[in-house]
Amino acid sequence: MAHGSHVIAVDLGGTHLRIAAVRDDGTVEEKEKEDSDSRSGSLAIMNRVADGVRRMAARIEGRQGKIAGVGIGFPGIVDSRKGVVYQSPHFPDWKDLEILSFFKKELRWPVVVDNDADMAALGESWKGAGKGIRNFVMLTFGTGVGGGIIIDGEVLHGDRGFAGEIGHISIEAEGPRCACGSTGCLEVYISSQGILRLAESTDDPDGRQKLLERLGRTQERLTALDLYEAARDGDIYAHGIFKRMGYYLGIGIASLTNVLGIETFVLGGGVAQAWDFFIDPAKKELGERTYRETAKAVRIKKALLGDNAGLVGCAADFFGKKSS
Amino acid sequence: MAHGSHVIAVDLGGTHLRIAAVRDDGTVEEKEKEDSDSRSGSLAIMNRVADGVRRMAARIEGRQGKIAGVGIGFPGIVDSRKGVVYQSPHFPDWKDLEILSFFKKELRWPVVVDNDADMAALGESWKGAGKGIRNFVMLTFGTGVGGGIIIDGEVLHGDRGFAGEIGHISIEAEGPRCACGSTGCLEVYISSQGILRLAESTDDPDGRQKLLERLGRTQERLTALDLYEAARDGDIYAHGIFKRMGYYLGIGIASLTNVLGIETFVLGGGVAQAWDFFIDPAKKELGERTYRETAKAVRIKKALLGDNAGLVGCAADFFGKKSS
Repeated sequence: MAHGSHVIAVDLGGTHLRIAAVRDDGTVEEKEKEDSDSRSGSLAIMNRVADGVRRMAARIEGRQGKIAGVGIGFPGIVDSRKGVVYQSPHFPDWKDLEILSFFKKELRWPVVVDNDADMAALGESWKGAGKGIRNFVMLTFGTGVGGGIIIDGEVLHGDRGFAGEIGHISIEAEGPRCACGSTGCLEVYISSQGILRLAESTDDPDGRQKLLERLGRTQERLTALDLYEAARDGDIYAHGIFKRMGYYLGIGIASLTNVLGIETFVLGGGVAQAWDFFIDPAKKELGERTYRETAKAVRIKKALLGDNAGLVGCAADFFGKKSS
Repeated sequence: MAHGSHVIAVDLGGTHLRIAAVRDDGTVEEKEKEDSDSRSGSLAIMNRVADGVRRMAARIEGRQGKIAGVGIGFPGIVDSRKGVVYQSPHFPDWKDLEILSFFKKELRWPVVVDNDADMAALGESWKGAGKGIRNFVMLTFGTGVGGGIIIDGEVLHGDRGFAGEIGHISIEAEGPRCACGSTGCLEVYISSQGILRLAESTDDPDGRQKLLERLGRTQERLTALDLYEAARDGDIYAHGIFKRMGYYLGIGIASLTNVLGIETFVLGGGVAQAWDFFIDPAKKELGERTYRETAKAVRIKKALLGDNAGLVGCAADFFGKKSS
């Protein structure tokens, strides 16, 4: 690709649609963010994405920039080779949607599509916490838990792009119901929703009551942010919740490293902000559930690119292999 | 490698040591089997393996055969690149054992070493149920549960060969204690030991009592073979045990396919003989715990090479990539 060129990067999430121009050195420029409006139909959303890409491209071309291609990250089960979204938790009407052929028809640049968490993993691999690391697993935890597995610098896709659904490994065969239809998945314990569930099923109801009173919210539910801020203020009840969440995270990481033999885990997403409160319990549990050598070898790192990880990842497919 | 040449293949298990000559077409010749005598020290066992290899090689060379190399499968945590066994469940005194350098010194042929379950997966990939299948997971269940993951025709080793410890993914965070130190691992439910545990913690103690009486074993424990034969005879209690075991296997396969995106599972080892009694419950559970597209896509197959899988796999490293 020509030096100085850009990729138009799209990160479509359940809440926001973000479009940016990413330079060949990984710099994110001209970021736009709007409501993703998940209730509108799939065609309306795809048209909105195509319009946004054309608008952003016109801006880059208007100042003599070159467009190397377009990268789009979607939430859900994406077959990146065939370019199909089979299913998406945030967009219930998306079924077997042929997104790649749609965007290839609509746009005049090369297009790559992938799962949003895979794009984030690629971004961290190219320019973030995974830089220079051959194999790592990225967990992005927010409302749900996304996963991307990098092996030899490439995303593991499996047979048709279903790989990396890390939020849906079993923690408790008969645990709470998960959005995926199963029960006791990792996601029901470590996502922001999962943390709220832990907060409600606490064995310290007095602590919970006191926190609600202190926050003046006796009639309301706590939010994940409430719990984070309370933990930061030293609230013992909130610390207990994150300790419990770390316990489950440690079990999940133990399972993953036992299967994949991968020693580096990169944690991103909103919930990862609570790092100080969950990381020690997670490491303790990992140590108790893996072979000695494995436990010694595992490193857990904070993601570095924040919200930009997916956007940077969209460009990595075009620039990453050349410049990294 | 010269046509007509052989690999000397070694499969060291907790019970048996098997040595064979494997031809470049995958045919197993001259198989020898002896007690592995796991109580003798690591050096004694390694010397016995080296002697056995030399003896087998002399036999092949005596009739003008050529030796392309030696492949050795070990149980436990093996770093195949460095050639180190870190830990082995059957050989407690094996710690950080530099097996590759030992055998390279002792033997005058190229040597490859790997985990025994990885060797079995390679064998099934080259000449068995995985032939022509780019990605698959092999589960070998007997006393324990071994795993080998094949991606693009190669064993997934991860950072240092710890990958594929499939028996040690979490099924129940607080389940029964596992030999690995964790609790509620897949192995404690689907290995022959696990099946006996299910048989003892049954919710049908009357059925159990009746089976014991029918077999004339009121004072003894049942064996996995007892349960298999009873299931074959239509015993409802025994069917219930395998149904429960299939339930846990289905959860394990669901976790694995969610992480790896791999759609083909090959089941081998003694316990896999009970296929007819666990496969439907396993598939049912898999269907309930994965996304629609994933569940539709997954195929579970019987291994084809039986006890020879590991031996054939030892030769695959030398011959497989040329002739498959």
